[in-house]
Amino acid sequence: MPLTAIPIRGISEIFSGDDLASLILGALRRQRLSLRRGDIIVIKHKIISKAEGRIVKLTAVRPSPRARRWASQNRLDARAAHLAFAESRRVVRQRRGILITETRHGLVCANSGVDLSNVDGGHSAVLLPVDPDRSALSLHRALRSATGVRIPVIIADSFGRPWREGLCEVAIGLAGMKPLLDYRGRRDPHGYRLRVTQEAIADELACVAGLVCGKLARSPACVVRGFRYPAGNGRARDLIRPRRLDLFR
Amino acid sequence: MPLTAIPIRGISEIFSGDDLASLILGALRRQRLSLRRGDIIVIKHKIISKAEGRIVKLTAVRPSPRARRWASQNRLDARAAHLAFAESRRVVRQRRGILITETRHGLVCANSGVDLSNVDGGHSAVLLPVDPDRSALSLHRALRSATGVRIPVIIADSFGRPWREGLCEVAIGLAGMKPLLDYRGRRDPHGYRLRVTQEAIADELACVAGLVCGKLARSPACVVRGFRYPAGNGRARDLIRPRRLDLFR
Repeated sequence: MPLTAIPIRGISEIFSGDDLASLILGALRRQRLSLRRGDIIVIKHKIISKAEGRIVKLTAVRPSPRARRWASQNRLDARAAHLAFAESRRVVRQRRGILITETRHGLVCANSGVDLSNVDGGHSAVLLPVDPDRSALSLHRALRSATGVRIPVIIADSFGRPWREGLCEVAIGLAGMKPLLDYRGRRDPHGYRLRVTQEAIADELACVAGLVCGKLARSPACVVRGFRYPAGNGRARDLIRPRRLDLFR
Repeated sequence: MPLTAIPIRGISEIFSGDDLASLILGALRRQRLSLRRGDIIVIKHKIISKAEGRIVKLTAVRPSPRARRWASQNRLDARAAHLAFAESRRVVRQRRGILITETRHGLVCANSGVDLSNVDGGHSAVLLPVDPDRSALSLHRALRSATGVRIPVIIADSFGRPWREGLCEVAIGLAGMKPLLDYRGRRDPHGYRLRVTQEAIADELACVAGLVCGKLARSPACVVRGFRYPAGNGRARDLIRPRRLDLFR
């Protein structure tokens, strides 16, 4: 069966407290699309953050000396830099205007995932959800009680990577499926036992959303249909390599 | 328009010198699928390597002292370790049985991309293509002259990443499109100029193949339909961050 990814269009501007499940289901109804068993919803983190009120007006931020120093050295906005430091639990690299941090969730990304684009003309910052796995679970449950169907939910953000140019989407929150497909101990068509191998399918599904939910289009989510995901109660947190096993932190 | 990814099935075992374009088109014909303008072919690197004869019988490998030392310390196959060192131009990390190298192409990955699985019961190793961009270009051209349609080609391999568990597919070869979608200078729906942002769509397209071409299924390629890719003559090499700009090498 082919895999299909259908962008969900016509979701209006999101405000704190909005009921995302209803907004998504309303948009799907207008597209004459109903969720079926086997479908997965992948949603950009920004509308989750907005619905959860994780928005900070920049005029309300008093930057720390550290943030002011870093910002003035690199011609950045000190208030945004302040939020990036404040949302981090550790700085991984800080060089040439690039700030790579470990967020409180353990995610390693630029500026702790603090994002200025797409919010009221740049005067506010969007922070990552406090607990993206919990956000995914709550949307997963709301969709289930509204539709009766068990729909896995993946929350995606676009991160840079070492060694490679360009951003790719990754799964920062997940509910209703497992994030890794485990081939360990299985055999290939030649009967050879596969060495490693866990595939980060939740990140690959997030990438599908990267392709169909363009940054400039008002399509913050998509339905992925036709992928046989591994059932179970997983979390995106399990995609984060523990620091003691990480050769690059 | 939705994005669709259709696995190409029924491609037989590949041998050195095989004409991949014919084999792919034959398999598509049996699936009653014809390539259309706008389609992209994503193909796992292994069949490219096999068709190009990049296979080494392990019995023919005389491991170096360095490879023997590393292998015996970590209970690995010294012959496979030898090939990993031989295919590298630099070791990036070598610790706890994990060997991360920079290949001659500049790709940073485990064991220089040398792969033992899926080849004649494990007695051979598959090396990466010598020049995956050139391999992609030659397949792209062969498909064009056979069909008259301009079909971008992406060659994918699955790589590990720092910070995150599990492998994801990445684009190691490419022809017929650009690998990055450039949002720099464009404005979001609020009129805010986007800060960065280049999206590594070729890697995201490779991830789609990761989802539809399972490691255990005999489906080494897929057709991605419905994605408006940026036209141009790009190379996957342009996805490799130059070492002097890389904070993690």
